[in-house]
Amino acid sequence: MRESFSIAGLVRPELEKLMPYEAKLYPEAIKLDANENPYPFPESLSSKIGELAAGDVLSRYPDGAALELRRDIAEYVGTEPEQVMVGNGSDELILNILLTFGTGGRVLITNPTFSMYKIHSQIAGARPIPVPRRGDFSIDVPALVCYARQPEAKVVFLCTPNNPTGNSTTLEEIEGVLQQVSCLVVVDQAYLEFGGEDALPLLKRYPNLIILRTFSKAFALAGLRVGYMLANTDVLRQIEKVRQPFNLNAFSQAAARTVLANRDVFKEQIQTVLEQREVVQRGLKSIKGVDSYPSATNYILFRTNHDSKVIFQGLLERGVLIRSLGGPELPGFLRVSIGTPEQNTKFLQALDQVMQQVGRD
Amino acid sequence: MRESFSIAGLVRPELEKLMPYEAKLYPEAIKLDANENPYPFPESLSSKIGELAAGDVLSRYPDGAALELRRDIAEYVGTEPEQVMVGNGSDELILNILLTFGTGGRVLITNPTFSMYKIHSQIAGARPIPVPRRGDFSIDVPALVCYARQPEAKVVFLCTPNNPTGNSTTLEEIEGVLQQVSCLVVVDQAYLEFGGEDALPLLKRYPNLIILRTFSKAFALAGLRVGYMLANTDVLRQIEKVRQPFNLNAFSQAAARTVLANRDVFKEQIQTVLEQREVVQRGLKSIKGVDSYPSATNYILFRTNHDSKVIFQGLLERGVLIRSLGGPELPGFLRVSIGTPEQNTKFLQALDQVMQQVGRD
Repeated sequence: MRESFSIAGLVRPELEKLMPYEAKLYPEAIKLDANENPYPFPESLSSKIGELAAGDVLSRYPDGAALELRRDIAEYVGTEPEQVMVGNGSDELILNILLTFGTGGRVLITNPTFSMYKIHSQIAGARPIPVPRRGDFSIDVPALVCYARQPEAKVVFLCTPNNPTGNSTTLEEIEGVLQQVSCLVVVDQAYLEFGGEDALPLLKRYPNLIILRTFSKAFALAGLRVGYMLANTDVLRQIEKVRQPFNLNAFSQAAARTVLANRDVFKEQIQTVLEQREVVQRGLKSIKGVDSYPSATNYILFRTNHDSKVIFQGLLERGVLIRSLGGPELPGFLRVSIGTPEQNTKFLQALDQVMQQVGRD
Repeated sequence: MRESFSIAGLVRPELEKLMPYEAKLYPEAIKLDANENPYPFPESLSSKIGELAAGDVLSRYPDGAALELRRDIAEYVGTEPEQVMVGNGSDELILNILLTFGTGGRVLITNPTFSMYKIHSQIAGARPIPVPRRGDFSIDVPALVCYARQPEAKVVFLCTPNNPTGNSTTLEEIEGVLQQVSCLVVVDQAYLEFGGEDALPLLKRYPNLIILRTFSKAFALAGLRVGYMLANTDVLRQIEKVRQPFNLNAFSQAAARTVLANRDVFKEQIQTVLEQREVVQRGLKSIKGVDSYPSATNYILFRTNHDSKVIFQGLLERGVLIRSLGGPELPGFLRVSIGTPEQNTKFLQALDQVMQQVGRD
């Protein structure tokens, strides 16, 4: 061994400034930080899912092509199985898109938005370029098109409804981008079950469109990591080159099929979340010093005139965990997931108390 | 949209020649192709595992740090939790190692070996360099060291016991490499429970050592995709930058913990596999025209003087699925997993018939 040995010296220079993602756990708090389905998982369904954990599902390699799940997803969304790829959460699909098309090029990211587009661009050796949204968080289509027509531009990420801002982009705007660019356009619709327009009808006309969806939100399977991608077969055939052969485990495949077959169970929950979203929205508007934003999702973006970390900490001390955004792009902003009616009441009460306290300090 | 639009033109040039991995399914055949645990999963244990599929395990994001599973693995192998990282199968860990240290450099691969080292090197933008094993499949330590001391060399992959050849590398040989190089050395010990020497004692002395292990083989969880990596904290801290925040789903984490807590169940199965390995080895040696190789694993490498595809097909027609290797590196070679005693008998009978038939043709 050479004397001068240092692990940091062996790391790719591009990763030097990248910080590991660290999620602190607060098991005692009401969890309104990650936009999960807040309801207890229906017992009739979880016992069906538990029965799937037997024999070959455990001990044999999964069907790497996930044929049956892809068939069920195709039937659910209204497309062909050949236009579906599943992943170990959308995170893996985002990385695979970038490893296929992004490496060495530029990736256009409509900030503020989901943080993984930027991080995975850096990991894949692509250069993330922020294309700021307007003040109301709508997409600046002309600016985006201008950037996307540069030859270095390889992939555009467009999240709708957008995380964390909650607003959605119209089909007309999405099509306005697709008509004018020839790089890949990834439309992330993780929250589509709660609002916004389905981009699927555009897939027939635009060979460069990729749509991301997930079982983690409305379908309550965040723990099992099941994301999926809808795209034309030419696109998927290329991404297939970088996909790990057994990327989605056999149990998650089977569980996702069971959830889809019983999806009526979740319809009512989604309806309640939409009603509760209005309750929380009204509650936020009634608290002095709080500005909240419209939402087409299962969370609401809001801001106060105080440091978002102070508000976050005050809520946590009262047993409510939400997401503090802050930073130069969203100074003073926070995001709260819509919980059960009881959780939402507790959140609004706690926020009211925190705002009164910081007003006094 | 520009007239000249083509998806293939948008793909990274390095991926052009990469072919997607395609695993054909033969659900009717006896499956001796993937080195899985051949026994029916113990029912007492699968029902315990089934009960884990409830509530938050399904609907909430997993513990991204997998603290409890890492603690249990550390206790099992005899190390600290801080030296353990878990992955969505070893495949994901291999890619993450390469994305952290390999991109832009060279990766030394001791061929013939597990195919994913090369494929993931290409995906990560590293250049895979084959360092051929000797005729008996042992490592050519001086050649490997010579290559690994070049400044472009970033990562060495050394699989022991080696897939698909079945032989193992001694600790002395591994240490011989570690003493002389300063790049990362990845020792893949997926089959350690069946034979070979544990590289863990070397971890204290060599900061550049990474060990890969898995629940997919002896511990019968191939379907749930649970791999793990043992390395020093400096190394893991860097790989942590590219790890997806929720890379291992909550159910697989919980199931792997249950398997570890009940690992005595598998000890007897491993013992039977080792006994059956001798039975299959003797059987292979008794069939004319078949040469078999020593094995420290749960599979055996063998060759005939015929095209391996012909032998593969003949076996498949008789209801037995094994792995045909072939190619320039292993011409005429095949690999058979050790099955249950009944499966092994069926395989040996089928191979005897196939060899007689091809001898006559």
